[in-house]
Amino acid sequence: MSTEDKYDFGMIGLGTMGRNLLLNMADHGVAGAGFDKDASKGVQLEKEGAPHKVKGFSDVKQFTESLKSPKAIMMLVPAGKIVDEVIEELLPLLDKGDILIDGGNSHFTDTNRRVDYLESKGLHFFGMGVSGGEEGARKGPSMMPGGDKDAYNVMKPILEAIAAKVDGAPCVTYIGPGASGHFVKMVHNGIEYGLMQLIAETYELLRNGLKLNNDEIHGVFEKWNNGRLQSFLIEITRDIFTYKAEGSDHLLVDDIKDEARAKGTGKWTSQGAMDLETPIPVIDSAVSMRDLSKYKSLRTKASEIYSSSEPLVADKEAFLTVLEDAFFFSMIITYAQGMHMLSKASDEYQYDLHLDEIAKIWRGGCIIRSTFLENIYNAYGKDKTLEHLLLDGDVKDLVVAALPGMRNVVSAAVTAGIAIPAYAAALSYFDNFRTKNMPSNLTQAQRDYFGAHTYALIGKEGVFHTQWMPK
Amino acid sequence: MSTEDKYDFGMIGLGTMGRNLLLNMADHGVAGAGFDKDASKGVQLEKEGAPHKVKGFSDVKQFTESLKSPKAIMMLVPAGKIVDEVIEELLPLLDKGDILIDGGNSHFTDTNRRVDYLESKGLHFFGMGVSGGEEGARKGPSMMPGGDKDAYNVMKPILEAIAAKVDGAPCVTYIGPGASGHFVKMVHNGIEYGLMQLIAETYELLRNGLKLNNDEIHGVFEKWNNGRLQSFLIEITRDIFTYKAEGSDHLLVDDIKDEARAKGTGKWTSQGAMDLETPIPVIDSAVSMRDLSKYKSLRTKASEIYSSSEPLVADKEAFLTVLEDAFFFSMIITYAQGMHMLSKASDEYQYDLHLDEIAKIWRGGCIIRSTFLENIYNAYGKDKTLEHLLLDGDVKDLVVAALPGMRNVVSAAVTAGIAIPAYAAALSYFDNFRTKNMPSNLTQAQRDYFGAHTYALIGKEGVFHTQWMPK
Repeated sequence: MSTEDKYDFGMIGLGTMGRNLLLNMADHGVAGAGFDKDASKGVQLEKEGAPHKVKGFSDVKQFTESLKSPKAIMMLVPAGKIVDEVIEELLPLLDKGDILIDGGNSHFTDTNRRVDYLESKGLHFFGMGVSGGEEGARKGPSMMPGGDKDAYNVMKPILEAIAAKVDGAPCVTYIGPGASGHFVKMVHNGIEYGLMQLIAETYELLRNGLKLNNDEIHGVFEKWNNGRLQSFLIEITRDIFTYKAEGSDHLLVDDIKDEARAKGTGKWTSQGAMDLETPIPVIDSAVSMRDLSKYKSLRTKASEIYSSSEPLVADKEAFLTVLEDAFFFSMIITYAQGMHMLSKASDEYQYDLHLDEIAKIWRGGCIIRSTFLENIYNAYGKDKTLEHLLLDGDVKDLVVAALPGMRNVVSAAVTAGIAIPAYAAALSYFDNFRTKNMPSNLTQAQRDYFGAHTYALIGKEGVFHTQWMPK
Repeated sequence: MSTEDKYDFGMIGLGTMGRNLLLNMADHGVAGAGFDKDASKGVQLEKEGAPHKVKGFSDVKQFTESLKSPKAIMMLVPAGKIVDEVIEELLPLLDKGDILIDGGNSHFTDTNRRVDYLESKGLHFFGMGVSGGEEGARKGPSMMPGGDKDAYNVMKPILEAIAAKVDGAPCVTYIGPGASGHFVKMVHNGIEYGLMQLIAETYELLRNGLKLNNDEIHGVFEKWNNGRLQSFLIEITRDIFTYKAEGSDHLLVDDIKDEARAKGTGKWTSQGAMDLETPIPVIDSAVSMRDLSKYKSLRTKASEIYSSSEPLVADKEAFLTVLEDAFFFSMIITYAQGMHMLSKASDEYQYDLHLDEIAKIWRGGCIIRSTFLENIYNAYGKDKTLEHLLLDGDVKDLVVAALPGMRNVVSAAVTAGIAIPAYAAALSYFDNFRTKNMPSNLTQAQRDYFGAHTYALIGKEGVFHTQWMPK
C-alpha cells in the first residue's frame, strides 16, 4: 500500500460509538480505518461511510499497516481488561511516537496506570471521555481528553472538527494531565445519573401523584424543555412520552421493565467522591435507587404487605408550577455537587482543572448538556477560583427563588408516600450546606465517648479527649 | 523461661483496645503478654493489670519467646500497611501451627489476601471484628471472628469468657469463612454511622427546630432510652447532655467543633454496598454528611449568603411523640439495610452467614447494641431464610405504626429548612421498597434512547433496542 492510499486515523472497536465517530471524521475529510473482530461491523462501516474513504478490518495487523505514520489510533472498547488486552495486541505493531487514545469509559485509576506504562514504551497516550451517545458520536460529541498534551495537540484539529459546536466553539478542550479526561467524564456520568433519577422521580410524581396520563406527562416535559429546564435529557423524555409500542396504541415506556441497569460509571463517581471526602448525595441516591430497582421480586413481595402511595393533595396547575421550581433547584444542586467534586479532585490529584472550560464543553454534544450549563460557565468564568457553585451570586438568586417550591414538593411527596430520594437528598444537602454549625459536634462527642477518638474545640488549637463516664 | 512461666496469649498493640482486651482476659485467668514499640504502654498494662499475670514487652523477639507453644497472638493495630508490616516482622518468629488473629478494623479485601498468604505459611489465621470501644474491650466486647475455624475453636473458650453476655449467652460466634468476620464488623460500623447520623439530626431538630435547651434535650434522650429506643448510642447521648466542660457551667458538647472525623469503615460499607449492588442509602447519607461537616469554612460562607432554618411550627409535646416514632422507624430501616447487605454478601462471597446469630451477638457489648436487636434476632430466628427484615410480620407492624409520625417529622423538617438527610433517605428507601413498579422503566428508556443500552419488557424474554428518534 503506498502512503497516499493509507488511512489518516484508526479506530478499534466498531460498536455504536466507534463506528459513528469514524463516520463523523469521514464527513470532515479524515480517511478512517476501523478494526473489529466481528467482520460484519467493518462491512457496516463501509456501507454507512460510502462514498467517503473508510475501510473495515478484522485483522489487526492489516489494520495497523493501513495507517499513515506516525499512526493515530483510538480504542472504543468496553472498559476493563479488554482495554489492556487490546493494548498488548497493539504494542508489537506500533512504533515509538505513535499516538494511542482510549476513548472508552475507563476507570481513571486504570488510565493512570496505562499512562505510565505506555509512556515507558515510548508511545503518546491519552485517555479521552466521549459523551453524546450514538447521535453525538455521529454528529458532534463532547470530548474530554487528558494526558499527553503534545499528542492532543496533534489530534486537536480533527477533534475540534468532529466535536459539537456551541456558538461556533467546539465542545472539546485539553482537560489536564494524567487520567483527568476520564475522571471528568466519570463525574459527567455521575451528574447524568443524578439528573436521570430526578426525572424518574418527577415521572412518579406526575403519574402516581397527580394521576396524569402519558399525553399530559408529555405536555409537562415539552413545556419544561421550552424554558429554563431545556436540556437533552428533558428533551428525550418528552419524546419518549410520544413513542408508541410497535403495532399498538399505547406507549412503549409502559411496557418496559422497571429494573434499571448501569455500566458502573455512576457507582465509580460515588465511590470516588467518598475517597475524596466530598459529598455528592444526589448522585449517591441515584446509584442506590438503580440498585433497589433490580430487586423487583423483593419489591413485589413488599408491595403485597405494605400499602401503596396516595395521590397528592394539591391543585394540579399550582403543583406543576412548584414542581418546575423543585426540578430546577435540584438540577442546580446536582451540577453543583459534580463541580465541587471536580474542584476537590483538581487539588487532590493535581489536575489543574479549569471548571469554566469544562462547563463550556458540556454545553453541547453530551448527555448532560442544558441551558443551565451556560450559567455554570458564566459563574466559573467570572471567578475562576469559585469554591462552590452555590456561592455564585447569580446562582444564589436562582436557588433562593426556587426554594419555596422545592420545599412544597418534597413535603407533599413525603406526605403522600411518593419516593423522592434524589429530591430529598438535594434539599437536605442544601440545608446542611448553608449551616454554619452542623450537629456533628455531637457525633464527635459520641466518637470520643465510646472510642477515645478525640475531638477539636471551637477556637482552640489541638485535639482533646475526655473520660466521659466514671470508670 | 520455663514453660510454666510462659504466657497464654500475646497481644500486639497496647492502645485502648489491645490493652483493655488483655486486661479483660487477665480477669478470666489468662496470662497475657503484650507488645508495643512504645514501652510506656507496657508499663501501663502491668500497672493496670496487677496483681494478675500480665507483662509488657517492647522487644518483639522477647515477646514471642515469652509465649506458650503453639503461640496465640492477636494484633490490634491500625488497619492498612501496618498490619502487613507486623505480619512480616512476626513471620520469622512463629512456627507452623501457631495462631494469629487480626482483631483490628482491616478492610475485608486485605483480610482475604492475608488469609491466603498466611495459610501458605502454615499459620492459622483469622480476622476478627471487635466492637465495644474501650469499655467493651475491658468489660465484655462483641466479637466477630471469621476465617480458620479450627483456630477459632482453640480460642473459643477464652473469647467466650471475655465476651459480653446477654441472658448468659456470650456475644461471640464463628461468623464464617474467609474475611467474613471483618466484613460483618464493617457493616456493623456502617449501621453505627447511620444511627449516629440519625441522632445528630434529632439533636438538630430538638435544638434548632423545637429550641430546646440542653437540659430538655437530655430529658428527651433519657426518656427514649427507657423505652423501645433503648440502645447504647442513645444512652451515651443522654450522658453527653449532662457533661459539663471543665471548670465551667455549660456543656462540653457545645464547645466541640462540628467537623466529624471518620476512620473509613463507614465509607467502606457504602462503597462495598455499591459493589454488591445493594442499596443502603441511610448509611450513604451518614458518610456524605460527615464529609460535608469537614467543609466548615465553605459552610460558614454559605451561611452568610443564605438564610438559616426556621423553628418548627409544631406543638412541642405532640412533635416529641411523632419524633420518637420517626426515630424508631428510621432505626429499623438502618438495621434493615445493613442486614440486607449482609444477606447479599453471604450469597455473593459464599460466607454462609447466619443473620440470627449475628443479631444475637450484637445484642451486647457492641456500639450498635439495642433492645431492637432482640426483634431482629427473633425475625431471623423464626425464618432463617428471611429475605429482608421489612418482610417480617412483626417488624412490619412496628413500621406501619410508626409511619404516620415519620411522615409528619420529615415534612415538618423540610418545611422549616432543617437538614434531615438520613431521615429522608430512610423514608424514600421505604417508599421505593414497597413499590412494585418503580419509575425506572423511564430510566431504561432513556438509556436505550441515547446509548442503545437496550431494555427488558414486562412479561417477555430477551433484551430489546429501539431507534427512538428518526435518523
